[in-house]
Amino acid sequence: MPSVDLNSDLGEGFGIWRLGDDAAMLQLVTSANIACGFHAGDPSTLRAVCLDAVKNDVRIGAQVSYPDLVGFGRRHIDMEPAELTDVVLYQLGALDAFAQVAGSEVSYVKPHGALYHAACAERRVADAVVEAVADYDHSMSVLGLPGSALLDAADAAGLEVAAEAFADRAYSDDGGLVDRAQPGAVLEDPRAIAERAVQMVMTQTVTTFTGKTISVPLRSLCVHGDTPGAVEIARAVRDALEAEGIGIYSFT
Amino acid sequence: MPSVDLNSDLGEGFGIWRLGDDAAMLQLVTSANIACGFHAGDPSTLRAVCLDAVKNDVRIGAQVSYPDLVGFGRRHIDMEPAELTDVVLYQLGALDAFAQVAGSEVSYVKPHGALYHAACAERRVADAVVEAVADYDHSMSVLGLPGSALLDAADAAGLEVAAEAFADRAYSDDGGLVDRAQPGAVLEDPRAIAERAVQMVMTQTVTTFTGKTISVPLRSLCVHGDTPGAVEIARAVRDALEAEGIGIYSFT
Amino acid sequence: MPSVDLNSDLGEGFGIWRLGDDAAMLQLVTSANIACGFHAGDPSTLRAVCLDAVKNDVRIGAQVSYPDLVGFGRRHIDMEPAELTDVVLYQLGALDAFAQVAGSEVSYVKPHGALYHAACAERRVADAVVEAVADYDHSMSVLGLPGSALLDAADAAGLEVAAEAFADRAYSDDGGLVDRAQPGAVLEDPRAIAERAVQMVMTQTVTTFTGKTISVPLRSLCVHGDTPGAVEIARAVRDALEAEGIGIYSFT
Amino acid sequence: MPSVDLNSDLGEGFGIWRLGDDAAMLQLVTSANIACGFHAGDPSTLRAVCLDAVKNDVRIGAQVSYPDLVGFGRRHIDMEPAELTDVVLYQLGALDAFAQVAGSEVSYVKPHGALYHAACAERRVADAVVEAVADYDHSMSVLGLPGSALLDAADAAGLEVAAEAFADRAYSDDGGLVDRAQPGAVLEDPRAIAERAVQMVMTQTVTTFTGKTISVPLRSLCVHGDTPGAVEIARAVRDALEAEGIGIYSFT
Repeated sequence: MPSVDLNSDLGEGFGIWRLGDDAAMLQLVTSANIACGFHAGDPSTLRAVCLDAVKNDVRIGAQVSYPDLVGFGRRHIDMEPAELTDVVLYQLGALDAFAQVAGSEVSYVKPHGALYHAACAERRVADAVVEAVADYDHSMSVLGLPGSALLDAADAAGLEVAAEAFADRAYSDDGGLVDRAQPGAVLEDPRAIAERAVQMVMTQTVTTFTGKTISVPLRSLCVHGDTPGAVEIARAVRDALEAEGIGIYSFT
Repeated sequence: MPSVDLNSDLGEGFGIWRLGDDAAMLQLVTSANIACGFHAGDPSTLRAVCLDAVKNDVRIGAQVSYPDLVGFGRRHIDMEPAELTDVVLYQLGALDAFAQVAGSEVSYVKPHGALYHAACAERRVADAVVEAVADYDHSMSVLGLPGSALLDAADAAGLEVAAEAFADRAYSDDGGLVDRAQPGAVLEDPRAIAERAVQMVMTQTVTTFTGKTISVPLRSLCVHGDTPGAVEIARAVRDALEAEGIGIYSFT
Repeated sequence: MPSVDLNSDLGEGFGIWRLGDDAAMLQLVTSANIACGFHAGDPSTLRAVCLDAVKNDVRIGAQVSYPDLVGFGRRHIDMEPAELTDVVLYQLGALDAFAQVAGSEVSYVKPHGALYHAACAERRVADAVVEAVADYDHSMSVLGLPGSALLDAADAAGLEVAAEAFADRAYSDDGGLVDRAQPGAVLEDPRAIAERAVQMVMTQTVTTFTGKTISVPLRSLCVHGDTPGAVEIARAVRDALEAEGIGIYSFT
Repeated sequence: MPSVDLNSDLGEGFGIWRLGDDAAMLQLVTSANIACGFHAGDPSTLRAVCLDAVKNDVRIGAQVSYPDLVGFGRRHIDMEPAELTDVVLYQLGALDAFAQVAGSEVSYVKPHGALYHAACAERRVADAVVEAVADYDHSMSVLGLPGSALLDAADAAGLEVAAEAFADRAYSDDGGLVDRAQPGAVLEDPRAIAERAVQMVMTQTVTTFTGKTISVPLRSLCVHGDTPGAVEIARAVRDALEAEGIGIYSFT
């Protein structure tokens, strides 16, 4: 039987502010992309989420970001590659301290928001991110879109890579995600999303926006943690995968 | 012959702003207290100073601080101990990433500014700082005032401790430093400071503000890096120590 | 018939993060203490809340704070008075720009969190805050605890002052608020709070924790906006006051 | 006789860090572009520079920026126009508070760094900046490159505009500035810069990199304040202009 990893963005509160239900999500996913303080995630949140991840046997990943608290890391910042490498390395080390104290380690890196988009699209950005990862710990993996510049760069650097897919997002025929602004770009029905997740894992394909079936190689499914109904959707996905006998294991 | 360590606060620029002459100081000291981003020290500065420290065979210490960029960490912030522990751990991990990539590691911790004063004076604060160090890496040392709550707490936690003295500061009879605001509290003449440094290391005593001679056990001398004439003073101290045949080695 | 002002802390989100239901509260209160960016309140939140305040005919107050986003302004920062004055002035000007563009102005100042406590307790802190207000616009009022150093300082500077009371907090016999950590310090039953509000306004007294009746002169009642049930409590208070025929008007 | 304004970027320290010699520059220029806290300029620096500007009869301008302290506002941040308008308005109000307390006001706006480049090049960005200015105070001017989107947008909004030129920068034939990275792009000889300044003001032309003479309409000359030799260059420019009998007056 096939297996899959479930990953989610967690630890995205800051100080008094909360976002999403980390505790509930940590009972459903196998990989936690934990914010590292640059778009969200104060030190005490990092500690709490790392501890809870370890308790739930969830692998810890670093959700590194541009330095942009007020913009939640969703705005592209035109940084020099060397500067970006340093910004990523800083976040890796900071999160790893909490992961280690919790009895684990940072196992993989998945950039956040605008940095995810830039690193998937531009090799120059991807190389800057990957350099930090490779220099810090060559045994870390990199999680990203299949066929992206990010995974190419990580692979070229000798890092293990893992491709992810989004069960709640519409795909275009070229394998890209349909822009969120377009109607129908984001699926909201837990059952439809769960069915789609099963299809993706079992067949490594997805039905696109236009009805075509395309290949989507994936080792991980991203389930969102910060939307209303996020926990319910994640649970539906997990239940459906388990009902099909699909193993749910961390990709690392 | 006795020996001593020379430590200095380095990496205290931020972005475009510079403070002190790190390159010159790294040729004179044996221990670099490197800012970790919370009172100074952007990621690229951390990288540059760590690399340069390793090149000069200088040990890397984490100069952890309250989160206070605009106040340069000199203002006391009334944080809960658990929160403070997390803030220290975050900085330790971040700096350690750069130290490791540079081929070294963070060997010791010396709190900065208001946190140094609070951790030396209050056991509750000291314990919070020490907890982060001990949890992260039990082989790290803690650098601070002899007889301080900070060294007591570190010692109680089983960490190696090192006492430091200030050759350019007037001491009161109880072994404390005379308040900077008082005239004569800060020495500025390189020769006088260098002579004082030799006395301190050779006799483990200091002549106080009132002329008394008191005991000052020390393994390290702090030389300031951010004042005008800092480099000249540090060089005078080092030259004088070497002229006496005193070994200058890292305390770790 | 007596009248009273209802004030609440609003605009306390930051970027993606929200806190409390500003829109609902603005239909119930007459004075909005709007965060100015230092403990909460990004620029776009300031604009939105100012616009909504004007639409609801609610007066705008500046909820100035220590610079402490991650601590939500709840941690005392030991700032020099001159520096504190500047920090308050910066926030006043920033908020006033949005108030003016919305067709209103900042009518009063109420410090937030740790700064509120410090300014109510210490004349030195109060003077620093008041200096900024008086220098910026002598027609602004200052809102704070009756008999506090803050109102004394404002009064001495020739500013209009307004005393506030808390219907949902237990009072000690000396007129202070019982520490939140103590059981019973915070009332949660909307009906009990509403009854207490009516008593406070009608009699300018409050029944203390020990059962004594003491004088509490007040021109404004603070209703919290950020707790679960906050809106329901505020509505109960307003309804009860109106049922007694008490006028609910801004104090400015 | 013609006249010209001299403008310079000032107040660009932050906390303990200094940049340039504000006091010396304020004796030479007629317009001070003061940092507003987002790329530089803590509140106490704003106060000090505004006071010193007023003492020297120098007009105060708001040097608004992207929120980017660590990058000194030199990195483009891809912000939504509405968000950018709010960020500019926040800075305008904050600086204006200090200008008013110093007995003056913010007379004009000149964006900083990456925002200057974006606002000069893209009408969408220019409109967002101008909207904040026009909404806040319709009597403010906007300072920027002649023929830029920024001045076009300001003009379209009914604001007064002023074109500036750079006596220490090489110009290309189309009137743009030669990229700093190119050799010869930045002039460093005070006498050459001063002669160029005189030519620019007297003839409203500049000799380009290729030797062509092109038209450069200008009401203000920008003199840099943060480079080594900045003060000497500014003094040479001022002396040369005065020697030609050119009046040096604020453009507002």
